[in-house]
Amino acid sequence: MTRPIHVLNGPNLNRLGLREPHIYGHTTLAEIETLCMDAAGDRPLVFRQTNSERQMIDWIHEAIDESCALLINPAAFTFYSMAVMDALKMYPFPMIEYHISNIHKREPMYHTSLVSGVATVVMAGAGARGYGHAVRLLCEMVADPAWPGRSL
Amino acid sequence: MTRPIHVLNGPNLNRLGLREPHIYGHTTLAEIETLCMDAAGDRPLVFRQTNSERQMIDWIHEAIDESCALLINPAAFTFYSMAVMDALKMYPFPMIEYHISNIHKREPMYHTSLVSGVATVVMAGAGARGYGHAVRLLCEMVADPAWPGRSL
Amino acid sequence: MTRPIHVLNGPNLNRLGLREPHIYGHTTLAEIETLCMDAAGDRPLVFRQTNSERQMIDWIHEAIDESCALLINPAAFTFYSMAVMDALKMYPFPMIEYHISNIHKREPMYHTSLVSGVATVVMAGAGARGYGHAVRLLCEMVADPAWPGRSL
Amino acid sequence: MTRPIHVLNGPNLNRLGLREPHIYGHTTLAEIETLCMDAAGDRPLVFRQTNSERQMIDWIHEAIDESCALLINPAAFTFYSMAVMDALKMYPFPMIEYHISNIHKREPMYHTSLVSGVATVVMAGAGARGYGHAVRLLCEMVADPAWPGRSL
Amino acid sequence: MTRPIHVLNGPNLNRLGLREPHIYGHTTLAEIETLCMDAAGDRPLVFRQTNSERQMIDWIHEAIDESCALLINPAAFTFYSMAVMDALKMYPFPMIEYHISNIHKREPMYHTSLVSGVATVVMAGAGARGYGHAVRLLCEMVADPAWPGRSL
Amino acid sequence: MTRPIHVLNGPNLNRLGLREPHIYGHTTLAEIETLCMDAAGDRPLVFRQTNSERQMIDWIHEAIDESCALLINPAAFTFYSMAVMDALKMYPFPMIEYHISNIHKREPMYHTSLVSGVATVVMAGAGARGYGHAVRLLCEMVADPAWPGRSL
Amino acid sequence: MTRPIHVLNGPNLNRLGLREPHIYGHTTLAEIETLCMDAAGDRPLVFRQTNSERQMIDWIHEAIDESCALLINPAAFTFYSMAVMDALKMYPFPMIEYHISNIHKREPMYHTSLVSGVATVVMAGAGARGYGHAVRLLCEMVADPAWPGRSL
Amino acid sequence: MTRPIHVLNGPNLNRLGLREPHIYGHTTLAEIETLCMDAAGDRPLVFRQTNSERQMIDWIHEAIDESCALLINPAAFTFYSMAVMDALKMYPFPMIEYHISNIHKREPMYHTSLVSGVATVVMAGAGARGYGHAVRLLCEMVADPAWPGRSL
Amino acid sequence: MTRPIHVLNGPNLNRLGLREPHIYGHTTLAEIETLCMDAAGDRPLVFRQTNSERQMIDWIHEAIDESCALLINPAAFTFYSMAVMDALKMYPFPMIEYHISNIHKREPMYHTSLVSGVATVVMAGAGARGYGHAVRLLCEMVADPAWPGRSL
Amino acid sequence: MTRPIHVLNGPNLNRLGLREPHIYGHTTLAEIETLCMDAAGDRPLVFRQTNSERQMIDWIHEAIDESCALLINPAAFTFYSMAVMDALKMYPFPMIEYHISNIHKREPMYHTSLVSGVATVVMAGAGARGYGHAVRLLCEMVADPAWPGRSL
Amino acid sequence: MTRPIHVLNGPNLNRLGLREPHIYGHTTLAEIETLCMDAAGDRPLVFRQTNSERQMIDWIHEAIDESCALLINPAAFTFYSMAVMDALKMYPFPMIEYHISNIHKREPMYHTSLVSGVATVVMAGAGARGYGHAVRLLCEMVADPAWPGRSL
Amino acid sequence: MTRPIHVLNGPNLNRLGLREPHIYGHTTLAEIETLCMDAAGDRPLVFRQTNSERQMIDWIHEAIDESCALLINPAAFTFYSMAVMDALKMYPFPMIEYHISNIHKREPMYHTSLVSGVATVVMAGAGARGYGHAVRLLCEMVADPAWPGRSL
Repeated sequence: MTRPIHVLNGPNLNRLGLREPHIYGHTTLAEIETLCMDAAGDRPLVFRQTNSERQMIDWIHEAIDESCALLINPAAFTFYSMAVMDALKMYPFPMIEYHISNIHKREPMYHTSLVSGVATVVMAGAGARGYGHAVRLLCEMVADPAWPGRSL
Repeated sequence: MTRPIHVLNGPNLNRLGLREPHIYGHTTLAEIETLCMDAAGDRPLVFRQTNSERQMIDWIHEAIDESCALLINPAAFTFYSMAVMDALKMYPFPMIEYHISNIHKREPMYHTSLVSGVATVVMAGAGARGYGHAVRLLCEMVADPAWPGRSL
Repeated sequence: MTRPIHVLNGPNLNRLGLREPHIYGHTTLAEIETLCMDAAGDRPLVFRQTNSERQMIDWIHEAIDESCALLINPAAFTFYSMAVMDALKMYPFPMIEYHISNIHKREPMYHTSLVSGVATVVMAGAGARGYGHAVRLLCEMVADPAWPGRSL
Repeated sequence: MTRPIHVLNGPNLNRLGLREPHIYGHTTLAEIETLCMDAAGDRPLVFRQTNSERQMIDWIHEAIDESCALLINPAAFTFYSMAVMDALKMYPFPMIEYHISNIHKREPMYHTSLVSGVATVVMAGAGARGYGHAVRLLCEMVADPAWPGRSL
Repeated sequence: MTRPIHVLNGPNLNRLGLREPHIYGHTTLAEIETLCMDAAGDRPLVFRQTNSERQMIDWIHEAIDESCALLINPAAFTFYSMAVMDALKMYPFPMIEYHISNIHKREPMYHTSLVSGVATVVMAGAGARGYGHAVRLLCEMVADPAWPGRSL
Repeated sequence: MTRPIHVLNGPNLNRLGLREPHIYGHTTLAEIETLCMDAAGDRPLVFRQTNSERQMIDWIHEAIDESCALLINPAAFTFYSMAVMDALKMYPFPMIEYHISNIHKREPMYHTSLVSGVATVVMAGAGARGYGHAVRLLCEMVADPAWPGRSL
Repeated sequence: MTRPIHVLNGPNLNRLGLREPHIYGHTTLAEIETLCMDAAGDRPLVFRQTNSERQMIDWIHEAIDESCALLINPAAFTFYSMAVMDALKMYPFPMIEYHISNIHKREPMYHTSLVSGVATVVMAGAGARGYGHAVRLLCEMVADPAWPGRSL
Repeated sequence: MTRPIHVLNGPNLNRLGLREPHIYGHTTLAEIETLCMDAAGDRPLVFRQTNSERQMIDWIHEAIDESCALLINPAAFTFYSMAVMDALKMYPFPMIEYHISNIHKREPMYHTSLVSGVATVVMAGAGARGYGHAVRLLCEMVADPAWPGRSL
Repeated sequence: MTRPIHVLNGPNLNRLGLREPHIYGHTTLAEIETLCMDAAGDRPLVFRQTNSERQMIDWIHEAIDESCALLINPAAFTFYSMAVMDALKMYPFPMIEYHISNIHKREPMYHTSLVSGVATVVMAGAGARGYGHAVRLLCEMVADPAWPGRSL
Repeated sequence: MTRPIHVLNGPNLNRLGLREPHIYGHTTLAEIETLCMDAAGDRPLVFRQTNSERQMIDWIHEAIDESCALLINPAAFTFYSMAVMDALKMYPFPMIEYHISNIHKREPMYHTSLVSGVATVVMAGAGARGYGHAVRLLCEMVADPAWPGRSL
Repeated sequence: MTRPIHVLNGPNLNRLGLREPHIYGHTTLAEIETLCMDAAGDRPLVFRQTNSERQMIDWIHEAIDESCALLINPAAFTFYSMAVMDALKMYPFPMIEYHISNIHKREPMYHTSLVSGVATVVMAGAGARGYGHAVRLLCEMVADPAWPGRSL
Repeated sequence: MTRPIHVLNGPNLNRLGLREPHIYGHTTLAEIETLCMDAAGDRPLVFRQTNSERQMIDWIHEAIDESCALLINPAAFTFYSMAVMDALKMYPFPMIEYHISNIHKREPMYHTSLVSGVATVVMAGAGARGYGHAVRLLCEMVADPAWPGRSL
């Protein structure tokens, strides 16, 4: 049986597209979920969002046990939650750290990610639609045993 | 007439795949070029590598005048060449900063990119094959006037 | 119908006045709530405390949707929770960051607030009774469309 | 006989409201004085402004000898005048450090106040009208021997 | 009636011994609990683990009210959770900060503990079996009114 | 024949208990020696103190050649003597770095230990009596070939 | 009627040329004044020196109200007087920050100017005679509405 | 025979005035050359631009051998090229470091010039037309043996 | 005719001995003046205090022209007034920087003196009576042409 | 019986006056000893020099037990020997930290003294003859129970 | 066939000995080449200099393919060219980083070499003639398979 | 009579080759001594090792008085012993600072040598056999009065 890809989204991402669309665009998290499902094709995909650090840690533990690849947008947790980082450090398969905006164009406090040091791939600035590309990249990495990050 | 995508590669990348394949893999830059051509489909694509900062700057100027999107792996220039960064700052279309390895897993001197602050998208750690994904992402961004980075 | 003022209190403030009154005084959070209600006069006021970062974020989202002004004492979250800061950044009305003690008289780790950069007003050191002043200030800011922070 | 509250204003505040009202608002320092007088009610209030560090120090010495509470907007002195800070350190009654704008939203050089470590209360961002609130808070602190800062 | 010792364990410690035993050893948290019970002898002992910061804070509040000594392995919370540190700061009896591995042999981000400044004793690197020694040390400290940390 | 445990004490510890007992307690180094002997039981134990860096290095070399475990309280050498650290780096058996007080509660210059990075276990704040616990921990580590630090 | 150019000189510049001519040259401030007058031609020019920060601030306020361009050599005020910097920040016309010596060749404490961030032009190292060039540059900037700094 | 003044321009300055005139103005490098020629009067002047660090170094060597004064706008080389700085360090005659914009108003990475420590005069923010003033200043410095920088 | 010794005292020292004698002692500045006069013996001595930076600079200029040695307690000016430091840098005879308390026992912002780098002798912590010793030291230095600092 | 003053001199001071007299002067340590004896008058004085840190610590322990005041020139130990600093911290009587040259005029590594934070008085730059002044100051401090540092 | 030793020299070294012989000595790069040839004896030696970073990188690539040992004086490239460092990182045989002067006696910007972390041996301060010693050392390292750096 | 070369070795180097030969190689210090003797040829050579800082300082004083050149491997003293550095600063002849391993490839605390700023030549990474090369270099420097470092 095929193990799913897990897609985890961190705090405040539930507000995406609902307010201030002139800044963040009109795409909602629900639309991103659809976009990820489409990109995953036949492979099952679990898509979740939480504002809770504990929930995020538990879901990462679940991902370690059940998924074949992980796409995580840790949002603000990226920059201070060493608990989330410690959980991710145990992840044994390909993992993409994803940020909708290019965090290096924001204030300095958004420039240093704790997660980048434990992720396989880092991707930032490709917007809502870039989620699909990240899922396709993961699918391909999972399918190819020779891909870097496969044996990581 | 369709403007091409430019793919520029920085210093030492001409040695890719030729030596120490146990570290960097067996993929050569020529193979990456093929991979990018395939990913670009009908859209023309210019693929170049140089060890020269001056050459890189001139090619970026050319890209500003002639291309519709830019994929750049600035290699070591990423971390100190403010001349390359100043040239890239003038680029008016979608631009991806690409690194084969996840630079955040390397020594601290590889963690702070000068280029990230002027790129549209940052992508690191997806290996040689990830070039193709980056090109496909650029094609899609160019095709969609509403994509973030289009109007940047 | 009048939108209420929200007053949110962060971790450990539920212990206020119960223990070590020689240090923190005898005023309990319940007494502060009464004091805020009195200060708000006719305007409804929602008063809450939580030790949970997730709960705090959810309440801030609620405040964005339902309140007209926000008084927040983020307690320890002030200094590291970028998730709380990101939530507050979206708050569209006057907001006061409130600290019972003057945080600048404490150890250096209490000197740099993440919240100050996104609040309208910062107030520290006026003790338990100062909550009332802060609420009165908010009432006046809400009532006066020309007040700085109104159009912020 | 009742001791007055002293209100001291630092360099460049004499220009308030006279120029660039689109930035700093139309309220002049004279109007702020009236506003403070009203807020003080029966209690006498001395309101002063100076561009001179020596004058400011002398007035703080006077405040130590004659006033019952101090409201100081040290303006630029906040960030470098250790002489003003040393004078304030001797102040034996409740003292509010007041800033019209939220200094934490300005450039980094405005983020570290030398005065905050010696003030009783710190207040920033409540605009010209916030002066009145600060005076009312001081009046209440002076009147209540149990208020924190009273016995400081 | 004898007050118990509380033993609190932070995020990700629920995974102990289950995965990657070549790195972390085969001892599970359940075995550590048994080991602590044995070490405590007649004295009751409460042993808990949580991935939730809020839960940890609530349990520390409970420990303040009900226990006679505290052994805490704050795991990742050690390094950023000022809310946990603030809660611990109120703990009035002997407290040991415990880390299974020697955190000073790990990456720099694990070298600066927020908790060490508020703990009575700091202990790191003695592995799973060291928990027992820490509990025995606490028992002895509790029993001896002259022990340093008793009157702290 | 059983190899002894070595216990080495650094500069100024010869003054322990002789002066300022209100600060450092009344326990002398001689009493600590007795306490360590008792804790070691049948296993021989060598207990020494020196104010000389050269002597300390020579004793560490001796410990490398003759002992089975090392308990070292390097006192002030902890914070600057790279020569002592280099000597300890060669120690092939379990080693505990011991501090009577919790160094993290002292001035910042006492927070960064050079020794922690080369010790097996770090222990601070358990006072004079804690030496006994440290010796018992070492005995157990020596006796158990599976203990972490055994094969280090 | 033509508005004058103001030339303001900071602390210790009254000693110029009087002492230690082997170091600072023989040119006095009076000679520099003549040199500036000549350079200004028909345009009136006000030339002043003060050791007083208050006086400097008042003269900057005057310059805002009365002059068309400002040449300021803030001397030591350059490096710490945020009050002078705040006053200069309001200056609405072309302004040159002038230093007789090249401050970047001096000790590090002379390398970071607070004034450079609010000046139009920065000029250092051209000696006493360079004042004339700076005045001529200002005259030309004032005369040309298209000059950068004109519309600043 | 009169030695010429050399004017050297660094990377990306060949794009001046061609693109984004709303930002950088309409003046091209060719127009600046004319402006410099005019300012130099009878004195010959060599005007060059390059994107190549090697070319810049070779031209500086040439300037050492052939010119009487140097005006250099090192552009991005200012901030990292120690090779250019080492070459300039050998220059034996008056040298002006010139920047079109006031670099101190830009991002922090543009604030620290490597060149300022080896130049005679530093000038920034006077725009394209300021080149003329710089050339005139150089002419005067060359003509006057007593000018500071002459005997440097 | 004998040139006098000048003794200059900085801001807030006029409050010495008048208030808070439990902290600063009962000695007033007037008593210190007497003490200095006595110590100077036949040599004339000028003793002054000011809260004004401008006044201090003018008096230093006077000291350069008229005195034979300088004792300065710059108080708070020590730590930020580069204008005072620049004036002192020109002083051609023996100069003592004097602080009543040991500034290295105070908060870190009092540890770095700008004046120490330009003084002949630095003396801190000898209290009010130490002024006399400093004056006697200066007298001896002035009398002895071979004393270090004489030919400085 | 009168307790003596101890004068302790650190490493390399045994070379004083023997070599490079053009730099360090011709005064030898033996001459300084005579000078100190004279200054002490009737009070006995012990004068010692060592290149050994252990010896220095032992002598400080002796001084604690036997002397009434301490003059120490710790030479290079000033800047790194926390063992010497820890020993000095226990000294219960007036102590002067003495440096022959003004250490603040030397390289930055000589600017931060570990000893200043535990000394009563700090004195630097008064040369070899200044030793006598320091001894006289100590004599006076010892004789006067009201002198600051007496009751320290 | 014997592989040669390559000797590569970086920017500005072509000026060696030609100018300012009082500073850099009279030895030219040509003389150093002779000196190296002599030192290499029978072993062929390739001696090159360039001001071009690209050329340096290409020559390092060549050295990787053709030489048996590398002596490089990267001059200014030492301190910023990560492209040169990346190329050197691939060098598989003994490599000496050589500096004519002792870079640690120069300004701080010359103290941190990027190359030292990838070289086998670092040598600085032995002047022009030291090149010969470095070549002899390389010859010996190449000849001895047990030499450290041989198997690197 | 010929003055000898002194070779001094710092702490822990007495353990060289005795233990852990897989790490440090099999060469003992005795073998290195032979190697140095051979390299020195006819010139006498004194070879010493000590773990004592005092001994090292005394031997440096001896070297100043008796030797013609100094080879020092200060081992750990390199990084903190300012007493050793101060002694070396007085050395009037050519001096080589020698490290067996390339210290720049080790942890950051081994990267900053206090000794490099006072040595003539710095050499690191050439292993045990490199001692011979260093001695030969010294012999040559001593023999050649024109060698840099001769007249230092």
